[in-house]
Amino acid sequence: MTDSDIRALVFDVFGTVVDWRKSISRQAAEFGGKHGVKADWDQFADDWRAGYGSGMARVNAGEDRWKTVDQIHRERLDLLLQQYEFPEISEGELVDFNKSWHRLDGWPDSTSGLTRLKSKYVIASLSNGNVALLINMAKYADLPWDAVLSAELTGKYKPHPHAYQRTVELLGLEPQQVLMVAAHSGDLRAAMGAGLRAALVMRPEEYGGAREPDLEPDPEFDFFAKDFNDLAGQLGCV
Amino acid sequence: MTDSDIRALVFDVFGTVVDWRKSISRQAAEFGGKHGVKADWDQFADDWRAGYGSGMARVNAGEDRWKTVDQIHRERLDLLLQQYEFPEISEGELVDFNKSWHRLDGWPDSTSGLTRLKSKYVIASLSNGNVALLINMAKYADLPWDAVLSAELTGKYKPHPHAYQRTVELLGLEPQQVLMVAAHSGDLRAAMGAGLRAALVMRPEEYGGAREPDLEPDPEFDFFAKDFNDLAGQLGCV
Repeated sequence: MTDSDIRALVFDVFGTVVDWRKSISRQAAEFGGKHGVKADWDQFADDWRAGYGSGMARVNAGEDRWKTVDQIHRERLDLLLQQYEFPEISEGELVDFNKSWHRLDGWPDSTSGLTRLKSKYVIASLSNGNVALLINMAKYADLPWDAVLSAELTGKYKPHPHAYQRTVELLGLEPQQVLMVAAHSGDLRAAMGAGLRAALVMRPEEYGGAREPDLEPDPEFDFFAKDFNDLAGQLGCV
Repeated sequence: MTDSDIRALVFDVFGTVVDWRKSISRQAAEFGGKHGVKADWDQFADDWRAGYGSGMARVNAGEDRWKTVDQIHRERLDLLLQQYEFPEISEGELVDFNKSWHRLDGWPDSTSGLTRLKSKYVIASLSNGNVALLINMAKYADLPWDAVLSAELTGKYKPHPHAYQRTVELLGLEPQQVLMVAAHSGDLRAAMGAGLRAALVMRPEEYGGAREPDLEPDPEFDFFAKDFNDLAGQLGCV
């Protein structure tokens, strides 16, 4: 199995393709300003994101029926608005603010790097975000996916092996023909466990100063890249 | 409910976006020539396509477990090769020839029309073709989908209502915000039954002279267009 067997690249999205933290912080600051609330909006972004893992874990464990990431975000938002002492807000505004997660900016290399990779490979999202969220985000951030694939289409959230296996099946490929690209070692290890290949891309700004990102080249992964253009170069894309 | 409520367009693909008959006939003629078989290759294309409806109907009726359109095409191909008296052919060649359905040419207006429609709407396939087939076809025929959606992601083939309803749900929209675009009245009527809106696009060449296409403007549909550029104009796309 060599690099030349790779046919498709599938991408983690939050943190790997888009800068969720600064994008949410900015939109939350606007929303707070409009409603007369002052807060540390980077912290608000982290607090909102913090509901994500446990919400998905409950679904994977069978403790909850399927909930989309939009639904998980909304449940967390309802709690946070109380905690941050927001006044009463109309349902229409809440629906729109919850869609802040559909409006996340790509990293500076995301569009150009993905475009290069697309010239040689099938490129698809493989995010826990729901399909509607990912479609809207792709329009907003100009992400040229060949296909919007999502854990929502598999019935299990990453890092459950079925999320990777079913995605490979939908692509009509063998696992070793698919390269998982992520800024997070855990996602990559789970993908490798399902037979996929793995590329770690550095996103040192994902958590601002709040959390140490995965920066160390890890010899267990097939590729280690500074950004998507670096990865495109390593994979021989023009 | 007015035209301005439409957020997404979903497209039937075989016949509506791509010219399956001439594309299959051409590839079959090459394949036949290579193996010393002479035949009416337009007829061969029609015969191959003819297995499609009954294969899907058995799945929808619960008489068969899920079979992808690739699998349905392959079962039909194995029968046809006997009927057309082909010599023995290697499995690798058969796998590739079965993928002729991944290599279908768009109609002359498909890429330009879809690109215009994409500037204002989410555009997605809604085909019975499996996801891998549709991804490969989009690369081959330069179809700029925002998302590759398929009956495969819903568990029921069109015209089962669930295929339309689940697609609308994946788009995060209400049925009346989604416009189904097809060259076939039956597909559109089923979509309307599920609450979607409907645009009939004329493809008079789909069946060559072999079968009468749907050409009559039908007042029950919301739009009736000569091609995708005509539809883009009617929908106010630049």
